[in-house]
Amino acid sequence: MEHPSIPKGTRDFSSIEMNKRNYLIQVIRNKFELFGFSPIETPSFEKISTLMGKYGKEGDYLMFKLLHSGDFLKKKISNFWIKEDPVIFNNQELMEQISNKALRYDLTVPFVRYVVMHKNEIFFPFKRYQIQPVWRADKPQKERFREFYQCDADMIGSYSLSSLWQEIEFIQLCDEIFTELNFPIIININHRDILGGLVEISGIENHLWKDFTTSLDKWDKKGRNIVKQEMLRKGISSNSFERIACFFDMKENFSKKIESLTIALQSSERGKKGIKDLRFIFQKIKNISLKKTKLKWNISLARGMNYYTGPIFEIYPDNNNGSRIANSIGGGGRYDQLASFFGMKNFSGVGVSLGLDRIYLAMEKDNLFSTISSSLSSSSKVLFINFGDEEVLYAYKMINFLRKKGISTQLYPNAVKINKQFRYANNNHIPFIISIGKNEIEKNKIRVKNLKTRTETEYNNIQEVAHQLMKKNP
Amino acid sequence: MEHPSIPKGTRDFSSIEMNKRNYLIQVIRNKFELFGFSPIETPSFEKISTLMGKYGKEGDYLMFKLLHSGDFLKKKISNFWIKEDPVIFNNQELMEQISNKALRYDLTVPFVRYVVMHKNEIFFPFKRYQIQPVWRADKPQKERFREFYQCDADMIGSYSLSSLWQEIEFIQLCDEIFTELNFPIIININHRDILGGLVEISGIENHLWKDFTTSLDKWDKKGRNIVKQEMLRKGISSNSFERIACFFDMKENFSKKIESLTIALQSSERGKKGIKDLRFIFQKIKNISLKKTKLKWNISLARGMNYYTGPIFEIYPDNNNGSRIANSIGGGGRYDQLASFFGMKNFSGVGVSLGLDRIYLAMEKDNLFSTISSSLSSSSKVLFINFGDEEVLYAYKMINFLRKKGISTQLYPNAVKINKQFRYANNNHIPFIISIGKNEIEKNKIRVKNLKTRTETEYNNIQEVAHQLMKKNP
Repeated sequence: MEHPSIPKGTRDFSSIEMNKRNYLIQVIRNKFELFGFSPIETPSFEKISTLMGKYGKEGDYLMFKLLHSGDFLKKKISNFWIKEDPVIFNNQELMEQISNKALRYDLTVPFVRYVVMHKNEIFFPFKRYQIQPVWRADKPQKERFREFYQCDADMIGSYSLSSLWQEIEFIQLCDEIFTELNFPIIININHRDILGGLVEISGIENHLWKDFTTSLDKWDKKGRNIVKQEMLRKGISSNSFERIACFFDMKENFSKKIESLTIALQSSERGKKGIKDLRFIFQKIKNISLKKTKLKWNISLARGMNYYTGPIFEIYPDNNNGSRIANSIGGGGRYDQLASFFGMKNFSGVGVSLGLDRIYLAMEKDNLFSTISSSLSSSSKVLFINFGDEEVLYAYKMINFLRKKGISTQLYPNAVKINKQFRYANNNHIPFIISIGKNEIEKNKIRVKNLKTRTETEYNNIQEVAHQLMKKNP
Repeated sequence: MEHPSIPKGTRDFSSIEMNKRNYLIQVIRNKFELFGFSPIETPSFEKISTLMGKYGKEGDYLMFKLLHSGDFLKKKISNFWIKEDPVIFNNQELMEQISNKALRYDLTVPFVRYVVMHKNEIFFPFKRYQIQPVWRADKPQKERFREFYQCDADMIGSYSLSSLWQEIEFIQLCDEIFTELNFPIIININHRDILGGLVEISGIENHLWKDFTTSLDKWDKKGRNIVKQEMLRKGISSNSFERIACFFDMKENFSKKIESLTIALQSSERGKKGIKDLRFIFQKIKNISLKKTKLKWNISLARGMNYYTGPIFEIYPDNNNGSRIANSIGGGGRYDQLASFFGMKNFSGVGVSLGLDRIYLAMEKDNLFSTISSSLSSSSKVLFINFGDEEVLYAYKMINFLRKKGISTQLYPNAVKINKQFRYANNNHIPFIISIGKNEIEKNKIRVKNLKTRTETEYNNIQEVAHQLMKKNP
């Protein structure tokens, strides 16, 4: 006899939680469609070759890999064993023999794989959204799960059709979603080309680019010193670091930052493009104006994923000044080269990914579900008391009638004591109880009890009952 | 450069497919809630110990197992190798070392695991629904996938609270769902206790029970002879087989079948209970009457899963006389012992599982989506032509206004040739195009083109446009 439990980092969701989660999904989905994104879905697992090398070392390591089914493992291992050759236990080689599939690590890479695979059926530019779980074998910790939902909207098309209005549309989209949720946010924004420009003027070698961005991204959480140590360990010189570190500490406003960086990056074409792009975005957003969103330029923002190339952003609750010490509730950016991994050149994608679980937790923390909680219940409106087979059979046409009217109606499964049946209604927040006993059948009446007001009313027919129950405050 | 593909047995879903799938899910979910079921969700993977041994040999074999993450495999394999002991390559033992998690194989076992784990927070009897994917490493073939969606509704509680009204409610629930989908069905029903009774009178030994039911379930698809051969191979005597085979061939109507089996099973308490139950269900259903559903007693129906104990049923499209040669689109039944696997005694569950993908395919085959397809499009209503940054900035408040009114509105991302932008609207079935060029800004007008009627109208303000677009046939 086992005492059951679930794998660490995973969760069950109760009905109360599901109603809130479904509400969030509904809001996000509606706004995605309002902005012209269409739904697609991709399989939960992809070929390992599709996913490997797209997320950086950490991603490859944290991917959940699937074993081939059946006794495949036994045969393979036996083969290896017979050879009695230690070299054969090379992880890579063995791995390929026993596993060639892995669970989705994000929604962006499968989306780009989808676009390349279906390029002949798709009209470009292509706008899609996708709301599905992803899996990462992260060390389970507070608010970090091994299975969690992402809500992604992306637009992809040939580079020549793209423009910064896409970034502006995504910022608007976020503002719309979080306004609907009554949840003020701060979007931290930056540009990979500005980081590229800073690397150029710092003298950091090109092959250290990934190491540089990975470390820099920890600036707000770990602080300058730890980031510096990490960078030095990776081979970045102290000189190079100090040459650009001042920019990551800048507390000035947008135009002051622009001023300083314009001077610093005047020798870098890449850096100048980044500044021009950011200036465009801020200018237009200022004219259009946002409702629940503040836009903040954060020069130390680099984003974890390898594949970003242009503007990048991360979303935080607007408390704590939107500091990146908290967990982000979403992020995104532009990726110009991802499709070329699959052989499609000159394609530019840009998108946003919202973390459903993070949004949920942040809203719970700020008690933001309370204002809408009354509409989130999915409990039934009516319970029919079970007095026995004969009475139930008599009542069943009434049950059917109420359900036909869209009124969620339950029948207690067995003719147990009335007390027990009433307790069931109470526990499940079912507000009305209908009793059809021998007495009611004889008198041709319907007895309806309101559990809130503790009043009882007799009706002549089920039409009257339905009419009453469908009123706003019956 | 790779040419991307997806693992066999998996599928991508386009927007057109997603809209139909989401419609099906919405109908099923609404009916589940109408009958008083509440949503829950469980993790995609469970501990192997939770799933193993619940589905029969085939299930254990077809489960997708997850490797521990990172370099765990390498270390473990190396350990095994160093010992230079062939015994260590015992599949079971090695398996446990490198994998202790597996993808969900159905929704019933995780549900029962959920109930036992959360028994102190749940009020019984507990009614829940769950709409999530499951995974099976079946040989991929036509209409059989390795990832597919199940839509389950179940009710579980102490045995003393249960009754056959639950089975009747589930039949009603199916009738409601398929009536809404305009999809006539036949429910094949049987009772495990009738099969138990037949085994008793046949002389088949008790330990062959699982083998017997697994083979019998193939009666309609494979035919009497193949089933007989299979049973003999498994150790059932020809004598025993012949003693009961006549019942699986019976073509008579319900009351004739009841008559014959009542006589045959008079010495079997178990068999008599089965007959009594089925008679109750048929009698009540006859009184209540179904809309799009026929109920058919099929004595050779046994169901694949080990865990069923009482009434069992399978759902088929009502063509081909509901023959079980076709693929079932759903099924279910009662399971009295499943919770005891996890240490909870005297609990009785009963439920239905609908196969979303099978329903989808059957409806496509019968062209049943066509009548509702016009309402299934999620495409945008308006495309704003991009004439350049200045014009877009001017138009953006109109875009925001239309979106605020709930009108799905897109902006073309770049100021490319007008032809190209019109083609985008056409390809994506966007019916209206709004052009705000220099001319319109100067004249303070809004030019709206209806792509269907090929007419163009000028408006004075965006309120007028919104008003027009929100009409039923604008």
